[in-house]
Amino acid sequence: MKIFIVLAHPEEKSFNAALFHTAINALAGAGHEVKTTNLYISNFQPVSDKRNFTHLKNADYFKQQEEEKYALRQNAFSPDILSEQEKVQWCDVMIWQFPLYWFSVPAILKGWIDKVFTMGKFYDNGKIYDNGFSVGKKALLSVTTGGPQKNYVADNYGSISSILFPIHRGILEFLGFSVLQPKIIYSVERLDDKERKMILDHWAERLMNIDKE
Amino acid sequence: MKIFIVLAHPEEKSFNAALFHTAINALAGAGHEVKTTNLYISNFQPVSDKRNFTHLKNADYFKQQEEEKYALRQNAFSPDILSEQEKVQWCDVMIWQFPLYWFSVPAILKGWIDKVFTMGKFYDNGKIYDNGFSVGKKALLSVTTGGPQKNYVADNYGSISSILFPIHRGILEFLGFSVLQPKIIYSVERLDDKERKMILDHWAERLMNIDKE
Repeated sequence: MKIFIVLAHPEEKSFNAALFHTAINALAGAGHEVKTTNLYISNFQPVSDKRNFTHLKNADYFKQQEEEKYALRQNAFSPDILSEQEKVQWCDVMIWQFPLYWFSVPAILKGWIDKVFTMGKFYDNGKIYDNGFSVGKKALLSVTTGGPQKNYVADNYGSISSILFPIHRGILEFLGFSVLQPKIIYSVERLDDKERKMILDHWAERLMNIDKE
Repeated sequence: MKIFIVLAHPEEKSFNAALFHTAINALAGAGHEVKTTNLYISNFQPVSDKRNFTHLKNADYFKQQEEEKYALRQNAFSPDILSEQEKVQWCDVMIWQFPLYWFSVPAILKGWIDKVFTMGKFYDNGKIYDNGFSVGKKALLSVTTGGPQKNYVADNYGSISSILFPIHRGILEFLGFSVLQPKIIYSVERLDDKERKMILDHWAERLMNIDKE
């Protein structure tokens, strides 16, 4: 299978980076094709604006969706967007590896989402959910949290499914992806070396059989 | 009252900008003090990393929360963060004006959140929710959507309350804010001039009485 993994963590020695590199090695070792984007290393610029495009339909009144439809016809997407769109279109499975920042994705990943999934190419009128452009593809969130699992309940932070709901339902399923069970590592700062190794081993094992999910 | 309004929209002619300027005028006209941040105009850099700090406790292994606690003691926050933190601490009511991008805040606002609400200053162990640093302050989301109100139901996009839940519960209430009823403008692109004027008038009227909410 063709797997695309996006990493959003500022520290290359982090457990997020370890999960990312473990995934690459496990998948490649199992004979899958892997492409990646390391958002911090590639210095991805997450602010969505006129710079998304090499030229504009209407430079005096910026309407992003109008420009996205125009850019599709005129081949006017900036190179940083185009290369990411190609990886999404190429893959069978997309994995996002990130730490939960304020109960959502870090801004650098939010900007990647804001810029990459353009109207006309990834969704359109009537082309969402079961009719989305990404139907047949799978998506998997791999998330670390600072807080302990016991806090992820309704009368505290909220359940993890309610926290991830806008991402699962509003982004991934909206685009047509089938959402796999997310990988959640709670209290990442409190794990000892033995626990970290066990988690990495389980992650590798799961991914080597990702084609069966 | 002291009101702090944050705007996150790339187009100064947008309806979001009109709502922002209407709010400033209405509040100032009613005798409230107003401070603002216009994230696109101020070219806010939303990627959270080592640049959040003027110097680091551990430059070889970046742990954001550790650095945040260190920066509080050592006065090591970057100027762009410090000036925003001061506005949050100053205000009685905080308003975020933004278009819903992929069922959440635009990346430029997500990065503002990721960078500004630092550990030790805005939350800490045991200092969240009813014990948060922002207890006594109010927060209000003012949001425009592309999609129509009828799509915001459980078997489609999801209810607006479930979409805003991670922001209301995971950010604002977590910090101690009391969350006011959000202002939601659906299908913003389809509004005619008369509807826009009516919405702006209602918004001004609501804000002139914000002290009673």
